[in-house]
Amino acid sequence: MNFMEIVIEEALKAQDNNEVPIGAVLVHRSGEIISKAYNLIQSSHDPTSHAEIVAIRLASKKLKTSRLVDCDLFVTMEPCLMCAGAISNARIRRIYFGAYASKRIDVGVSDIMKYYSSNECNHAPEIYGGILEIECSKLIKSYFGTKR
Amino acid sequence: MNFMEIVIEEALKAQDNNEVPIGAVLVHRSGEIISKAYNLIQSSHDPTSHAEIVAIRLASKKLKTSRLVDCDLFVTMEPCLMCAGAISNARIRRIYFGAYASKRIDVGVSDIMKYYSSNECNHAPEIYGGILEIECSKLIKSYFGTKR
Repeated sequence: MNFMEIVIEEALKAQDNNEVPIGAVLVHRSGEIISKAYNLIQSSHDPTSHAEIVAIRLASKKLKTSRLVDCDLFVTMEPCLMCAGAISNARIRRIYFGAYASKRIDVGVSDIMKYYSSNECNHAPEIYGGILEIECSKLIKSYFGTKR
Repeated sequence: MNFMEIVIEEALKAQDNNEVPIGAVLVHRSGEIISKAYNLIQSSHDPTSHAEIVAIRLASKKLKTSRLVDCDLFVTMEPCLMCAGAISNARIRRIYFGAYASKRIDVGVSDIMKYYSSNECNHAPEIYGGILEIECSKLIKSYFGTKR
C-alpha cells in the first residue's frame, strides 16, 4: 500500500466519525511513517485540528523537534491557508496532495500554494498535486453531498 | 489595563520562558477575556503552538465550539500565514495587532492579511494594526537582538 492509499484510509476513519474526510500522513525521507492523522474538528471543537496540523503535532512530539526538515506530508486534499502556513513553519520538505481545493479558479495550485513563492515566506516546500485525485475528490464530494 | 497591555504581559511571560515574545488574548464582544496565551514552541516542540493558535485552542475548548464568531483577537504581532488561516477558520470577528511583520515591504498590512480579500477565503476578519506598535516591536527586536 502506498502513502496516498494510507491517507485515504485515514480520511475514511474521519468519515466514520462524522468528520470532514481528510487524512494526512508524515513520512521520513527514509520511508518510515512518523504520524498518521485525520480531521478532529467535530470531536475536539478545535478549529485548528485539521488532519495536517494533527499529523504535525504528533510528529513534532514524537521526534522532539519543531523542525520536521526530513519529512514529507501526504494529504488527501490541497491544504488550506492555515495548514499551508503550518507546513512552512514546520519546515516540511514536500507536500503530496490528492484533490485540488474546490474554489481554485485557474489551472494549477491555489493562491495559498502560490504564497510559498512570496517574499514573506521563510520556507517553501516542493508541491506535488493531483495524486489519486479522483478517489480523493470523491471522498469530499460524497461527504458534502450528504451534508448540503 | 487594556487588552493590548494584557497581551504585552503575555509576551513577557514567553520571554521569561526563552520563547519568542508574542502574546495573544481572545476577548468576547461582551468584554470578557476568554483565553490568554503566549508562544510555546520551545517548550512543546510543536511548531503550531504560536500564541494565537494556543489562544484559539483554549477558547474553543472553553466555549465548546470551533466557531468563535463573537470573539476578537488581540496579539502583539501581525499574525503569520498559519495563524491568519486559523483566525479565518475559527471565524474570529476582529484582529487587533501591535507590530507589523518585519518582512512587510509596502505600506499597510502584509500579503498574508491581503489573502483575506481573495476568493479562496471563507471568512475575513476586520483588521486593526499598529496598536502600541513601538512597545510591541521593541519586544521582538530585543529578543532577536539577543539571539542573532
